Amino acid sequence: MALTGVLRPGHVALRVLEMGPALKHYVDVLGLIEVARDKAGRVFLKAWDEHDHHSVVLREADEAGMDYMGWRVDSPATLKKLAADIEKSGLASDLGWVPAGEHPATGERFRFTVATGHVMELFAEKDKLGNDCGTDGPDVNPHPWPDNLRGIAPSRFDHCLLYGDDLDGTVKLFREVLGFGLAEQVTAGPDGSLMIGAFLTCSNKPHDIALIRQPVKGKFHHASFILGSWEEVLKAGDILSRNKVSLDIGPTRHGITRGETIYFFDPSGNRNEVFAGGYIYYPDKPTITWTEQELGPAIFYHDRKLNERFLQVFT
Amino acid sequence: MALTGVLRPGHVALRVLEMGPALKHYVDVLGLIEVARDKAGRVFLKAWDEHDHHSVVLREADEAGMDYMGWRVDSPATLKKLAADIEKSGLASDLGWVPAGEHPATGERFRFTVATGHVMELFAEKDKLGNDCGTDGPDVNPHPWPDNLRGIAPSRFDHCLLYGDDLDGTVKLFREVLGFGLAEQVTAGPDGSLMIGAFLTCSNKPHDIALIRQPVKGKFHHASFILGSWEEVLKAGDILSRNKVSLDIGPTRHGITRGETIYFFDPSGNRNEVFAGGYIYYPDKPTITWTEQELGPAIFYHDRKLNERFLQVFT
Amino acid sequence: MALTGVLRPGHVALRVLEMGPALKHYVDVLGLIEVARDKAGRVFLKAWDEHDHHSVVLREADEAGMDYMGWRVDSPATLKKLAADIEKSGLASDLGWVPAGEHPATGERFRFTVATGHVMELFAEKDKLGNDCGTDGPDVNPHPWPDNLRGIAPSRFDHCLLYGDDLDGTVKLFREVLGFGLAEQVTAGPDGSLMIGAFLTCSNKPHDIALIRQPVKGKFHHASFILGSWEEVLKAGDILSRNKVSLDIGPTRHGITRGETIYFFDPSGNRNEVFAGGYIYYPDKPTITWTEQELGPAIFYHDRKLNERFLQVFT
Amino acid sequence: MALTGVLRPGHVALRVLEMGPALKHYVDVLGLIEVARDKAGRVFLKAWDEHDHHSVVLREADEAGMDYMGWRVDSPATLKKLAADIEKSGLASDLGWVPAGEHPATGERFRFTVATGHVMELFAEKDKLGNDCGTDGPDVNPHPWPDNLRGIAPSRFDHCLLYGDDLDGTVKLFREVLGFGLAEQVTAGPDGSLMIGAFLTCSNKPHDIALIRQPVKGKFHHASFILGSWEEVLKAGDILSRNKVSLDIGPTRHGITRGETIYFFDPSGNRNEVFAGGYIYYPDKPTITWTEQELGPAIFYHDRKLNERFLQVFT
Repeated sequence: MALTGVLRPGHVALRVLEMGPALKHYVDVLGLIEVARDKAGRVFLKAWDEHDHHSVVLREADEAGMDYMGWRVDSPATLKKLAADIEKSGLASDLGWVPAGEHPATGERFRFTVATGHVMELFAEKDKLGNDCGTDGPDVNPHPWPDNLRGIAPSRFDHCLLYGDDLDGTVKLFREVLGFGLAEQVTAGPDGSLMIGAFLTCSNKPHDIALIRQPVKGKFHHASFILGSWEEVLKAGDILSRNKVSLDIGPTRHGITRGETIYFFDPSGNRNEVFAGGYIYYPDKPTITWTEQELGPAIFYHDRKLNERFLQVFT
Repeated sequence: MALTGVLRPGHVALRVLEMGPALKHYVDVLGLIEVARDKAGRVFLKAWDEHDHHSVVLREADEAGMDYMGWRVDSPATLKKLAADIEKSGLASDLGWVPAGEHPATGERFRFTVATGHVMELFAEKDKLGNDCGTDGPDVNPHPWPDNLRGIAPSRFDHCLLYGDDLDGTVKLFREVLGFGLAEQVTAGPDGSLMIGAFLTCSNKPHDIALIRQPVKGKFHHASFILGSWEEVLKAGDILSRNKVSLDIGPTRHGITRGETIYFFDPSGNRNEVFAGGYIYYPDKPTITWTEQELGPAIFYHDRKLNERFLQVFT
Repeated sequence: MALTGVLRPGHVALRVLEMGPALKHYVDVLGLIEVARDKAGRVFLKAWDEHDHHSVVLREADEAGMDYMGWRVDSPATLKKLAADIEKSGLASDLGWVPAGEHPATGERFRFTVATGHVMELFAEKDKLGNDCGTDGPDVNPHPWPDNLRGIAPSRFDHCLLYGDDLDGTVKLFREVLGFGLAEQVTAGPDGSLMIGAFLTCSNKPHDIALIRQPVKGKFHHASFILGSWEEVLKAGDILSRNKVSLDIGPTRHGITRGETIYFFDPSGNRNEVFAGGYIYYPDKPTITWTEQELGPAIFYHDRKLNERFLQVFT
Repeated sequence: MALTGVLRPGHVALRVLEMGPALKHYVDVLGLIEVARDKAGRVFLKAWDEHDHHSVVLREADEAGMDYMGWRVDSPATLKKLAADIEKSGLASDLGWVPAGEHPATGERFRFTVATGHVMELFAEKDKLGNDCGTDGPDVNPHPWPDNLRGIAPSRFDHCLLYGDDLDGTVKLFREVLGFGLAEQVTAGPDGSLMIGAFLTCSNKPHDIALIRQPVKGKFHHASFILGSWEEVLKAGDILSRNKVSLDIGPTRHGITRGETIYFFDPSGNRNEVFAGGYIYYPDKPTITWTEQELGPAIFYHDRKLNERFLQVFT
């Protein structure tokens, strides 16, 4: 968690073209747990080791992509303070409050749009559902994993990678107002001074949000979920193939973050990632810089080159 | 890192009976890197993925055990504030400052003794040595791991487990003054209200320090170092056996923290652990409670019972 | 498979005290598949990647232990020839034929008792059930693993370890008549000439049967089932603990065979093992010899010492 | 080993364009051990867990590719018998004997050319060098792995995949004369009766040699070396990238054999594979058939499609 009180990515709201196939994908194949539906037809999901009520929100729409990403902060006081800080910073637009209950089991959310066109939210309250591991009550004498897992079964929603134009504005807000660290960056340009990729963290994880500079607004590259081991990445690949899920790339390793990864698409074309590994980040760790010439191994350390799809396909 | 600004366990200072065998153990077998010696004969070591100058300090003495454990805070201002908070709390004794340079490449340290008799330190400055992964300069286009590893080669010093009597006093200081979270606890007593084990964290890791209630003062159970996978735990066991290192227990899994672990002893009888795995902790995660009857699986999840050595042997 | 035509351990017949708890153990926890019951109440089971009709036979009895172990040979002609060879050798007693159909879906079996008192069988015919991986018919376009696995789910029954007195006689029969290789041996005695352990193979696996010299006749130490990885050994330990199965030892590594292992007991006290790893054996590979002083690491490579239970508890 | 007495792939002789870079690749990166050079400049190598004197032979030439592949049989008598059988079969050409000593530490070899144009050899004698694991003499009280490994360090040379036209002739010889099993096949053609891929085994491994039908003679697709785990496949990918070795594809899983794999090229363009996993084969296991439509997942189970390079690039 950042010293500002931003704890973690709390939810991502995705648009899907049809809810039926989407749920088959996110529940049966990816292995998330459906926890609620609302009157508008939105479906709320969580991963097995998340205590919060939900971390993924699906909505039917004519176009795939991300509606917004929400960040859990440690307290209502922090929520109030950060909302004011964001407003004061001038680095976001369309600021406003979403009332408590608009997401089930969730308090009020402060919503704003960052320079790359993505809608972000902060919130301080969401009910706890626990993780089904406890044997003598929730959180009492737990097993290390529940016995009702199915599909790939990542333990948590981990981060998003987003595409947008004004990278500097968004990075400035996350770093200077929300207190994120810049764990890694990709630089380009004649003197290497143009940041074309930013991997930002509010935790000891190598990234909680990543941004790539592209001449677009508010685009979504992928939502990522965390696994426990490289062997689980292999099993994920097996499960994806068995279910004829459209694979993007992997299993492989990222240079950036060292993560062990596999990418694939939901039936609406939204990219997902499951991954394992990475290092322990601290705010005083020097930022890792990747130069443009080493962009290949930065993204796919084994292949040492990008596939075009990675840059060109997003929602 | 805690919202108070305490970032991580920064160093542990251990007493060894003879420096030669100790270095064979910590460098050749465990795989730490020697970075400095001082006039007093102390040897300073780091793990390969730590950026700080050192994390382990060895000193020859007539009796094994831990001299002190040091905590990195985010800034000199935090150091000053926390020193004042500790003094004000009345929860520590023998407070004082160790001047900059007493540890090489390290700023001044605020030293104090907690209720269980352990000496703790806070510090804000230590030189960065980096991790030997960068290919075009430190932290530029890095490989995921350096190619000069030897021995078990954990990536970082992770935490200590300590034995002492006044658990409540020490836990109170870590939680209320330093801002640590209580990730897990073991309870006992007629009504289950006596905390006999506390697993405290200032990060997203399940523990940065752990304490077990025993009728002693200032005792050391183990220092732990983190590995990347369960397979590395197996290889650690192989390396320990090849070198005829005295094994305590493992490979196995902890119920507490879910860690995958192996314990062993340095030539002076100080216990070490290397482990992998565990979950991602956040300050709003409910504390996990283990009841006394389930102490077996809490500590060794597979064996479901303690070996006597785990409770009775410490330094 | 041995050049004589002995292919593999085809089945092990075990006595259990109560069938209900035994099936809960072997089906729900270990993850074998029940394929048949006969009028006598025997239950026939197979592991998921075995093609043969069954590999484990359970029978209710007043005392736990092994009734017999059966070996699949490549053809009826080999069966006939080896039966004659065994008779001629004088190394077995109580020779005779069990008629086809006495085991469901199985041809006639040649039964004999070896010098250590264990009942062995050879057979050439057993129906094939396949492995549930094929997608367009059995054995057509298969997935790497079926999606209906439960429990620990080893892929195959692998070997047995047996205790008996006249080791030399049994080893002589397996080597000289059945064509097994001696992959590893443990030696003792004043001049190291007494073989106290023999690890015999009719395949490229390090062992298909193992024998330990003990002053008993026809005793059973364990039946072993093979897993795909060290991570599956960890998961096996987790599943055993969740189900409160009595653990013997592990996860750990064997010096002998290099296997990565965990031992546990069925509800009747019969020991089971699941393991991964080991090397590729060929008939021209030199026999590995373990001396008595290194018996500890030979059996448990990490602990470097035997637990008494390993030697004293058998059925 | 086949019931005929063919034990294993004993060696592969490869042509490289320049010996210096080739040795850097095969020794420093792949991690084979150089054991001998002869007057003609050939270099003989072995993997760490092979007992035989050598398994890879490198020769400088103007064109990359495979000179021949040699098969270890169990005895001189078998060698003589199989040489006669091959001659009698009419399925091979250019038959002849290579005298003992032409390869260092190796007995006479019977050489022949199969229908696809590949040169094969049988031999019965090669000196044993052992595996550096023994602690009290070779093969006495061994460690599970030696402590002088470097690079990727596969334990053994495992198999070759070859490209050629008259697949039927070569498969017929291996099956009917040498006693290999057809573990898996790929079929095509209007009625699925054309075998376009054959995976043949003389052991309990899923393949010892594989052949793909292509309108060429005597071409080499890859030589493969075996690793102990999927994690070692990841580390292999890391080591290849660090050394800027040209990667073909992987890490990924094969549908055929279930192997976990990564492909790459030596500096001369010869393809190598390192892999882990696979199943246990027996001669009575039904042949697995892959239909042409499922060729994608057959080769690369996760991607579910071939890359052109896999079919078009060979030496």
